Amino acid sequence: MSTRTPDRPIVRLKPKAQKRLRLGHPWVYSNEIEMSAEVKALPPGSLVRLLSSGGDELGTFLFNRHPLIAARLLSRDPVEVIDAGFFRRRLQRALSIRERLIGVPFYRLAHAEADGLPGTIIDRFGDALVLQVNTAGMEALTPALLEAIDEVIAPETVLLRNDSPVRELERLDGYVRLLRGSVEQPVEVREHGARFLADLSEGQKTGWFYDQRDNRRWAGDLIRTAAEGARVLDAYCFAGGFSIQAALAGAQTVMGVDRSARALELAGEAAALNGVAERCTFRKSDAFAALEHLAKKRDSFDLVIADPPAFVKGRKDLPQGLRAYRKLARLAAEVVGPEGYLVICSCSHHVDMASFVDQIGRGLAEAGRPARLLRSAGAAPDHPVDPRLPETQYLKALFLALD
Amino acid sequence: MSTRTPDRPIVRLKPKAQKRLRLGHPWVYSNEIEMSAEVKALPPGSLVRLLSSGGDELGTFLFNRHPLIAARLLSRDPVEVIDAGFFRRRLQRALSIRERLIGVPFYRLAHAEADGLPGTIIDRFGDALVLQVNTAGMEALTPALLEAIDEVIAPETVLLRNDSPVRELERLDGYVRLLRGSVEQPVEVREHGARFLADLSEGQKTGWFYDQRDNRRWAGDLIRTAAEGARVLDAYCFAGGFSIQAALAGAQTVMGVDRSARALELAGEAAALNGVAERCTFRKSDAFAALEHLAKKRDSFDLVIADPPAFVKGRKDLPQGLRAYRKLARLAAEVVGPEGYLVICSCSHHVDMASFVDQIGRGLAEAGRPARLLRSAGAAPDHPVDPRLPETQYLKALFLALD
Repeated sequence: MSTRTPDRPIVRLKPKAQKRLRLGHPWVYSNEIEMSAEVKALPPGSLVRLLSSGGDELGTFLFNRHPLIAARLLSRDPVEVIDAGFFRRRLQRALSIRERLIGVPFYRLAHAEADGLPGTIIDRFGDALVLQVNTAGMEALTPALLEAIDEVIAPETVLLRNDSPVRELERLDGYVRLLRGSVEQPVEVREHGARFLADLSEGQKTGWFYDQRDNRRWAGDLIRTAAEGARVLDAYCFAGGFSIQAALAGAQTVMGVDRSARALELAGEAAALNGVAERCTFRKSDAFAALEHLAKKRDSFDLVIADPPAFVKGRKDLPQGLRAYRKLARLAAEVVGPEGYLVICSCSHHVDMASFVDQIGRGLAEAGRPARLLRSAGAAPDHPVDPRLPETQYLKALFLALD
Repeated sequence: MSTRTPDRPIVRLKPKAQKRLRLGHPWVYSNEIEMSAEVKALPPGSLVRLLSSGGDELGTFLFNRHPLIAARLLSRDPVEVIDAGFFRRRLQRALSIRERLIGVPFYRLAHAEADGLPGTIIDRFGDALVLQVNTAGMEALTPALLEAIDEVIAPETVLLRNDSPVRELERLDGYVRLLRGSVEQPVEVREHGARFLADLSEGQKTGWFYDQRDNRRWAGDLIRTAAEGARVLDAYCFAGGFSIQAALAGAQTVMGVDRSARALELAGEAAALNGVAERCTFRKSDAFAALEHLAKKRDSFDLVIADPPAFVKGRKDLPQGLRAYRKLARLAAEVVGPEGYLVICSCSHHVDMASFVDQIGRGLAEAGRPARLLRSAGAAPDHPVDPRLPETQYLKALFLALD
């Protein structure tokens, strides 16, 4: 065994945390760790062996004393060699699940903890991969991860999109680096029979929001089964995800609104690609302003979709963000026609499903619109959740029938 | 207006409750009501006009001083005539949503508060309706509701299945009464291309669990896309809902387990109806005992489904019920083969999604099975939720991929 045992520093838990860790929880908070002088001196992102206060082995963890989540599980085996072979096995398993469930090579290939890659996201766009590494530990291991990616996927383009503000918690700099290939042209994305365009270098996050794939399909199904020939408003249309699925499902007209000129350009091009350009219009506007304007004109729609960026980015934004969701529901309801539908979403990690439903219910009541919640859904299955971290279920999509 | 104003007794709120009520909440708790001698003397189930402490009209409510939920909203209009015409409008709206979304006449036609019928459930099986009335107010209004049902649906069979234990909270007796037609034969149910048999007089609840319709389809889709030729175990198979969808999706073998001989009989007949009888076996057993037995034999399955009856029937059962879900997850995981799937559900109102995921995560950890939660879902859209009552989202279905 000694050849397999790397010279891995030891970090010890305080007594109270061990029950949770023994029961499979993958995170250790900084106040649960015995912060000896040696431990404090470990470079951020060190691979460590975590021991209970009694000396039991808990596995190999990534350690960084700066963030609140100070240690993240990498392997239950305290002496496992963490190299390209290790990441290859993780990626092969992640890939096999996506290949079976999604079919086409357009998906989130790795979704952080749930895929055994702490704080690390990999989105696949055919032959192009976009990585986002949000922990110091995985930052240090990126060369081995890239080697494994070459073995498993051999992508033509690899973009390291390490510009998320959450990196600051780990005291990591933000940067974007093209490691291979080209991102000059937008890439084509395929989803449930539709074609979209994603700009990997300029877009938000990794360029496309795969998490809404199945909710976009369900919105299309709603039109097919319950709102044939619907007039649709997509209040935060981004590059046209919901809009184009709505048009393909038979919407008579789709109005997409977004603040990003580049996103609207991609949405327009995608509408043409799918042969639905003449039924889609895309307008540059703030969503709240557009909704107020449409309500003033007494315009109304059979289906309104509101999938905004996160209103609650940190815990301190919670009261204000909840009010914003409530206001959005009220304004959106005011332009939903009689017996029309509303699809309203939140990707705020800090807002749980019950609070979100409650705020939307209040907004609808303020608008005087009785409503039935037909379906509440989360992210698509290529965004799996570690069942020990239910709080990482961030996406909430509500489908409502208004009277 | 005076001809429209029924002689409706007045119930007044204490000051603190009005904000919630003004914002659309449909329930008043007994400690929020000014319990004058006149109010206390109102017969259980009386139609009342609810006023704020300041005298504002809040609408027409059903009042019963006995249960914790002492008043339930029936109409925002304090003088609306509550007659067959009133219920006809409610039923027509409920029907139009189901006809569009479900297509075939097999669904929950009315789901209590969300459909404007407090505590009242109507399940439709083609020409047969099963009603469950769980509030004294709706019990008193049942003749008008039945008249409306005749106008809107004109069913051949009407069964009043008023034997739910929740009626005791309203001090209502339990009884089952066939109002019209016959329930001697099981009725055929159609769901996503499959045919099932429901026994309206002997079965659990109203005879069939429509709430799992879309989760059964998703389990089938999982087999089609990710587990072709799967060996499936359905640990609480009831009348074969998940089992037969699994077999139709291409499962090689399906083993259904249930404690009810009658349910197994219906499951077997339904398997034959769908032409999948030779791939299905149904066994009478307790699920925990069956799982332990299969684990001891080192049997394993590519997909295990566990959709038990509610383990938590009241708040006092919570600690014990949560442990039962955790144990079920552990035992089920022990018979899921490598890279197999687990679908595990809870219909306990008192267990929220986060607590359920947490218990399942612990059970999987105890079984030593790392897992990805691919999807968490609720009830089908014919079980809508009043968005002011997010706590009434009772069904939780988790789809997990195990390593």
